[in-house]
Amino acid sequence: MADSPLDDLQATLHREIPISAQMGITVAGYDAGRLTLQMPLAPNRNHKRTAFAGSLNALCTVTGWCLVYLLSRERQEFGDVVIRRSSIKFLQPVDGDVITATTEQLDPALLDYFAEMLLEKGQAKLDLRVEVPGIDGPAVCFAGSYVVLESRLLDGVGE
Amino acid sequence: MADSPLDDLQATLHREIPISAQMGITVAGYDAGRLTLQMPLAPNRNHKRTAFAGSLNALCTVTGWCLVYLLSRERQEFGDVVIRRSSIKFLQPVDGDVITATTEQLDPALLDYFAEMLLEKGQAKLDLRVEVPGIDGPAVCFAGSYVVLESRLLDGVGE
Repeated sequence: MADSPLDDLQATLHREIPISAQMGITVAGYDAGRLTLQMPLAPNRNHKRTAFAGSLNALCTVTGWCLVYLLSRERQEFGDVVIRRSSIKFLQPVDGDVITATTEQLDPALLDYFAEMLLEKGQAKLDLRVEVPGIDGPAVCFAGSYVVLESRLLDGVGE
Repeated sequence: MADSPLDDLQATLHREIPISAQMGITVAGYDAGRLTLQMPLAPNRNHKRTAFAGSLNALCTVTGWCLVYLLSRERQEFGDVVIRRSSIKFLQPVDGDVITATTEQLDPALLDYFAEMLLEKGQAKLDLRVEVPGIDGPAVCFAGSYVVLESRLLDGVGE
């Protein structure tokens, strides 16, 4: 029986980014275009028993990466996904036993443009936001700029 | 025999942020006000055998954190160091076996102001830059905004 796209994504994540398994990052759900990943606090804690900023940043980074990976696979495009830049704000300490990060709802017009570029040019860029929920609002706000590149184009990244 | 400040920092880092030990992050040197941390590629690789963006972000985050920690201890202030926000640019793939991140040289006037605020207000903010070197220029540029707070003030963070 074929794996579901989320099972495939989960296996891909731990195979391609091994430290994500050490952090306990798993795919929690994909609903109405919004992808949620989660990780336990325990291995990602700091001395104040809240989440380490670097782990929160990594969780948000891979949540965005996974969404772009899913979106490109849904369109039968199998290029590599890389992140070009990101920014993050830590608004509240994060102290739940399980920490979730969810991508924002994307504008359908942006998604259409992403798919069009991927098909026509073999590469496409997607800017997206990821949030870790807190009390009465986000605890962490992350924005990342990702690109999908066909493997033949990938050697040029960053040059 | 008392530990050196860098030995103390190294022990503090792995005790207070356990995932930094899983990533293999260690304190590599502190020279002329510039602090260098390093990590091996192997546990932090992605499927392309270059460094995972989330690990690079975590390395830069803790490098800045460690510098602010050192600076506050040098001034006999023992508040908690937290990061408020950061941004990062990934300019080149990072594929060395050992990856280093170094803080920029800080303006002495900024450092004086940091020390003054810490002494007078019990809290101080420091914006700093961290770089991972690449070929003919930085591979990764990180900017973080950190604060040091006396423990009695810390409950207010993020509220």
